[in-house]
Amino acid sequence: MHAIVIDGGLHWAEVPDPEPAAGEVLIDVVAAGMNRADLMQAKGQYPPPPGAPPYPGLECSGRIAAVGTGVTGWAPGDEVCALLGGGGYAQRVAVAAACVLPLPAGVALADAAALPEVACTVWSNLTMVARLRAGETVLVHGGASGIGTFAIQYATALGCTVFATARAAKHAAVAALGATPIDYEHEDFATRVEADVILDIVGASYLERNLAALRTNGRLMIIGAQGGLTTELNIGWLLAKRATVAATTLRSRPLEEKAAIVRGVREQVWPLVEAGRIKPIVDRRVPMAEAAEALRVLESSAHTGKILLTP
Amino acid sequence: MHAIVIDGGLHWAEVPDPEPAAGEVLIDVVAAGMNRADLMQAKGQYPPPPGAPPYPGLECSGRIAAVGTGVTGWAPGDEVCALLGGGGYAQRVAVAAACVLPLPAGVALADAAALPEVACTVWSNLTMVARLRAGETVLVHGGASGIGTFAIQYATALGCTVFATARAAKHAAVAALGATPIDYEHEDFATRVEADVILDIVGASYLERNLAALRTNGRLMIIGAQGGLTTELNIGWLLAKRATVAATTLRSRPLEEKAAIVRGVREQVWPLVEAGRIKPIVDRRVPMAEAAEALRVLESSAHTGKILLTP
Repeated sequence: MHAIVIDGGLHWAEVPDPEPAAGEVLIDVVAAGMNRADLMQAKGQYPPPPGAPPYPGLECSGRIAAVGTGVTGWAPGDEVCALLGGGGYAQRVAVAAACVLPLPAGVALADAAALPEVACTVWSNLTMVARLRAGETVLVHGGASGIGTFAIQYATALGCTVFATARAAKHAAVAALGATPIDYEHEDFATRVEADVILDIVGASYLERNLAALRTNGRLMIIGAQGGLTTELNIGWLLAKRATVAATTLRSRPLEEKAAIVRGVREQVWPLVEAGRIKPIVDRRVPMAEAAEALRVLESSAHTGKILLTP
Repeated sequence: MHAIVIDGGLHWAEVPDPEPAAGEVLIDVVAAGMNRADLMQAKGQYPPPPGAPPYPGLECSGRIAAVGTGVTGWAPGDEVCALLGGGGYAQRVAVAAACVLPLPAGVALADAAALPEVACTVWSNLTMVARLRAGETVLVHGGASGIGTFAIQYATALGCTVFATARAAKHAAVAALGATPIDYEHEDFATRVEADVILDIVGASYLERNLAALRTNGRLMIIGAQGGLTTELNIGWLLAKRATVAATTLRSRPLEEKAAIVRGVREQVWPLVEAGRIKPIVDRRVPMAEAAEALRVLESSAHTGKILLTP
């Protein structure tokens, strides 16, 4: 098969066909979602976890081509999407059966690659860890990103009030998904919103204002640090607000934790997708051989939602 | 009645008798527990929340003397203990019925004043927020304190492995409660333990080492800041460990949250007390008129467990 090989640059190259090990399924990839982590991996800064394919790509959609020993519940021909430890930028990928999700009714197979990574990241942060409840207010940073567009729709579907930071040019898109947009380039978000839960991709440079924007009993969920890793923390603010700061990354979780998250998504998020309350937001589709160019678009944040690669 | 009045110093003075408002009970105090927060209140730094009595004292045991309108489940003569917003350093105190707990079977009424504040603080942090599970490892800072002696017993009863920092002179007491003691004056606790949950009263000066001591998916619960309020936070450590830092104070919670915690304690902690798995640890009893002297003992941390005042 062909896959994107990282070798000085990104090359669409002939590589050995993967085989499904025990407990794995082999997927014929129809589309692969791109994520910021792929940028780091392409630069050699984020090696895949042990056992994962060496090619980039943390999610895909496609059809099951074969199942390994001991796999139940999946059969060749099934239309699925999957959370991957790597290897989505390829014609085929083998993945643990526990990380596979059925194609949600009403979603095109070519679009479903936009869902696994963002659904698992958003559900594990907002529901599993932060225990977001209907009626609460959520602030989503990077509201036009893949994570952001999903988080806005999910929190809105749960019955929350949602604010989202985004460049002014993306405010219409963010508002259409259900959020009140905040122009972070010209406004201090901490003066615009009091949030019960904040989903943050910025890290250090936003920490003080994120804590200022939190309500009593608020939960700040940090999933990225595009704005730096170290800064001063005022524990007095935490105590006064009874606040929680939690940080998570999805790819580093062991298989049993990913499997629990995939189960949670299937039970609690998929019904919202099938009801049309959450839609995959696809910015564009790019042939896999042009992955390097697509990564430059991703890095520039010129997109809204997800960029998908097609083999 | 008499109560401790803060007026330049602490005076055991004649004050008006309290009356139970609607939803409150009036308690004839048998004993009052002392807490570090009382030190701050005595210095004028921690005013009581709105509606609370002006006298110090966040917990007591005693007998119900009268019930206000609308109170069900309690009657005059009932032996109880209670979580107070203030007013325990007195002969009588009125408190919301939702903050009252029955005397646990097997506990002397004069000892039960040692339980409400520590039980509610420990349960709300370790179980309600940190979701501590059997088999996990807990690090308790200040293991010989009132909070510490209770937290060690509670986590041990849950089936956890417990480590506790304490001065060497208190190691025997801490070990007898179920913890492996760590001499924080001569050892770096972060080299001694990898903890799933840390219960911390120190704050800033321990933050870096607390994060170093946390396991993946670890939860650092901060309930005090005796070691300062501001310090550097490395978000990269949080992300790498998928760690949570949460801070809480009990007295500032609104009544409905206190009531939920008291219900949780009654359902999940009281059975452990009645089974003898958790005992009130009473360091000494002091007449209320000598509260000022007892607060000096509390400030010096010469005690192990709780200091109780008797009217």
